Amino acid sequence: MDRILSSQAASHQGEEIQLAGWVHNLRNHKELQFLVLRDRGGLIQAVAQPDSKVDLSSLGKEYGVEVTGTVVGEPRAPGGVEIHLSSINVLSVAEEPPLEINRPKVLAKTHLDKILDNRPISLRAPEIRAVFEVQAVLVDAFGSYLRSRDFTEIKSSKLVGTGTEGGANVFEIDYFGQPAFLAQSPQFYKQIMVGSGLERVFEIGPVYRAEKHETSRHVNEYTSLDFEMGFIRDEQDIISMQIGLVGHMCAAARENCPEQLKLLGATAPEVDGKIPQVTFKEAIELLEKEGHRCGKKGDLDPEAERLLCAWSEKEHGSDFLYVVGFPLSKRPMYTGFHEDDPGTSRSFDLLWRGLEVTTGSQRIHDHGLLCEKMRERGLDPAEYDYYVSVFRHGMPPHGGLGMGLERFTMQLLGLANVKQATLFPRDRRRISP
Amino acid sequence: MDRILSSQAASHQGEEIQLAGWVHNLRNHKELQFLVLRDRGGLIQAVAQPDSKVDLSSLGKEYGVEVTGTVVGEPRAPGGVEIHLSSINVLSVAEEPPLEINRPKVLAKTHLDKILDNRPISLRAPEIRAVFEVQAVLVDAFGSYLRSRDFTEIKSSKLVGTGTEGGANVFEIDYFGQPAFLAQSPQFYKQIMVGSGLERVFEIGPVYRAEKHETSRHVNEYTSLDFEMGFIRDEQDIISMQIGLVGHMCAAARENCPEQLKLLGATAPEVDGKIPQVTFKEAIELLEKEGHRCGKKGDLDPEAERLLCAWSEKEHGSDFLYVVGFPLSKRPMYTGFHEDDPGTSRSFDLLWRGLEVTTGSQRIHDHGLLCEKMRERGLDPAEYDYYVSVFRHGMPPHGGLGMGLERFTMQLLGLANVKQATLFPRDRRRISP
Repeated sequence: MDRILSSQAASHQGEEIQLAGWVHNLRNHKELQFLVLRDRGGLIQAVAQPDSKVDLSSLGKEYGVEVTGTVVGEPRAPGGVEIHLSSINVLSVAEEPPLEINRPKVLAKTHLDKILDNRPISLRAPEIRAVFEVQAVLVDAFGSYLRSRDFTEIKSSKLVGTGTEGGANVFEIDYFGQPAFLAQSPQFYKQIMVGSGLERVFEIGPVYRAEKHETSRHVNEYTSLDFEMGFIRDEQDIISMQIGLVGHMCAAARENCPEQLKLLGATAPEVDGKIPQVTFKEAIELLEKEGHRCGKKGDLDPEAERLLCAWSEKEHGSDFLYVVGFPLSKRPMYTGFHEDDPGTSRSFDLLWRGLEVTTGSQRIHDHGLLCEKMRERGLDPAEYDYYVSVFRHGMPPHGGLGMGLERFTMQLLGLANVKQATLFPRDRRRISP
Repeated sequence: MDRILSSQAASHQGEEIQLAGWVHNLRNHKELQFLVLRDRGGLIQAVAQPDSKVDLSSLGKEYGVEVTGTVVGEPRAPGGVEIHLSSINVLSVAEEPPLEINRPKVLAKTHLDKILDNRPISLRAPEIRAVFEVQAVLVDAFGSYLRSRDFTEIKSSKLVGTGTEGGANVFEIDYFGQPAFLAQSPQFYKQIMVGSGLERVFEIGPVYRAEKHETSRHVNEYTSLDFEMGFIRDEQDIISMQIGLVGHMCAAARENCPEQLKLLGATAPEVDGKIPQVTFKEAIELLEKEGHRCGKKGDLDPEAERLLCAWSEKEHGSDFLYVVGFPLSKRPMYTGFHEDDPGTSRSFDLLWRGLEVTTGSQRIHDHGLLCEKMRERGLDPAEYDYYVSVFRHGMPPHGGLGMGLERFTMQLLGLANVKQATLFPRDRRRISP
């Protein structure tokens, strides 16, 4: 007999089936022994009736088991059916788990450190695992949308001889006795690949920031969802592409993960091709009206992001908001700018539910201008010749953006900490599991 | 007017269109100036006729341009149409490229170091770029096949506190003043994720081997295509899954990249659900008949891999071959084995066109047995508790495999060196671009 999944049992009523999975729960009720079995399809109740000769008393929680039994309609059971057991085969014995996997609201009721210290086991809680089931759908939706728009997926190196964009926040590696660094972003590589003639590329890969912050929205290693495209008019082409992309990702979560969203109490917004925009200057004015002063450093602070999203929700009924036209001085050296207003960049942030989830921009494509901007920031173009060379040999107008997968997942699911949306998070104290 | 691609021009005959791309070639013929334009759709010929007032004489190769013109049927032009230019707009000027991008057979006729030293520009050669267009299709096909078989994509950490499987060939990182290592494989994480209840997982991500070899089939960083699945009977379930997967990947290359395969003179085999198998012992006997002695170290050497594939081709008409039942002693500590023959592992290699492209196996799932095997190899289970804990709390029979994306691409396309199939290869001497 071939194994089927718990989620398929209801369509086999009256039949003998085989299931396999973990013992999620055990209980006795009068003369009956109940077993809740957990497999990748969900949970199902199985019963050892007194005349069945099946004995569950030697089992423990989290044992791996293979069972056979008959599917019987039972309105009181979750899913409307239960299994009347005819045999059970133990695949693996198990110690009692270090946290209550079958407890409702386990994510909210368990300390984050306990969840992370026991990550391999805490993932068995359906609510905790659901986060990563949704995340897998988001990764797939990101790639499939861009492929349908003629983007090519690339895999660039994460080991670089120089910090990607200069700066100090890089992890150093011993590379056969020479120093090398973990890439902070695939920025230079994706620009090179636009110039390679692929024109439109995306990458899904790890990036590294050796920053010492300890906040609810930072980790030192995350999965960056990047795209870059050539032959654009300006940064609005990038924004248009992202609006379609984000709408598709949210729709994919709604369509593929209704159970997971319900379990986590989350809703995936409908984007409908529109996200409101304000300029940085307008944003600062709006914030001043709300009594919040910031922006002197050319950027928004976390409170500003929260207030602006609340405004967007109230004014436009959208929990997304683009802020465009950030001051050039605080943006990376490759950032494009308005010719008639050279202090204003062609960069933007996408805010979602109170948090920045994307930074993007049109980039500089002129070789001479790029070298000039590098020198202004104290970078020697000759040291970055592998990057600069692609501009010397003809580069079209282009731009792109990067989104943190874990942060996007966090905002979609309304989680309190980005580490809840990171499978094996890395921070200053945590290098394992 | 909106830009269209060169590949779309033939369906706009008689119409005025806009194109954009790079100047692939320029030439004069009598009173006519010809321009070959390259965009992500391919190549197209454009003509400045004497009465058109369009002057191409100030252009150079690799300039970025935007052109408008009328599509005219021209049987002598590649693609059957050419563009009669009405305007041209220079987007970016370009220095002469360091290698002849428009030379036929550029991949075979250019020294590999020259290609790699100038990677950002050499990728502009259609034949070189084609390798990575095929590679992107393979990545997509790997993921889409496994998703259709109920696998969930995961993103595990590449920074680990201990070497993944022990051993010395790891790159060390300075992680906030503490030593950490770049992961050699996602092995432990994907096993953990089987045990998390996802049961079937795959990962596409970079892996690192600090090996000092310099061969045509090794790089120090590559993209590993990994899957792992639970509730299997034995390693044959893994092999069956891979046969379908590899067949799907080859079919995807045939269907999506006919032009690229033609350009590279490559064929993607039809697998049809079958790949022959021999045991390690049978393989050694076959090799001895051919006069080649190896296997004393419990493994096959490169010449053995070539001979066995030639045998499979001759005997079974297949350029694939599985070798199963390798001696346990040379396989990793987590490798399963035959209960009635404990020196023979449940591991296998897939050989393709003379080269190993996969190693996989059923794994040990019993906690006590795993700890015993770790100790035999000098590993302390307590040091790997994040991994071992998932076994202590109940792990089903499971197994999986890993395939190097670059090596798979190399074999599919018949390339001479894996670095030709690696976008930005890393070896002892090469950390840039």
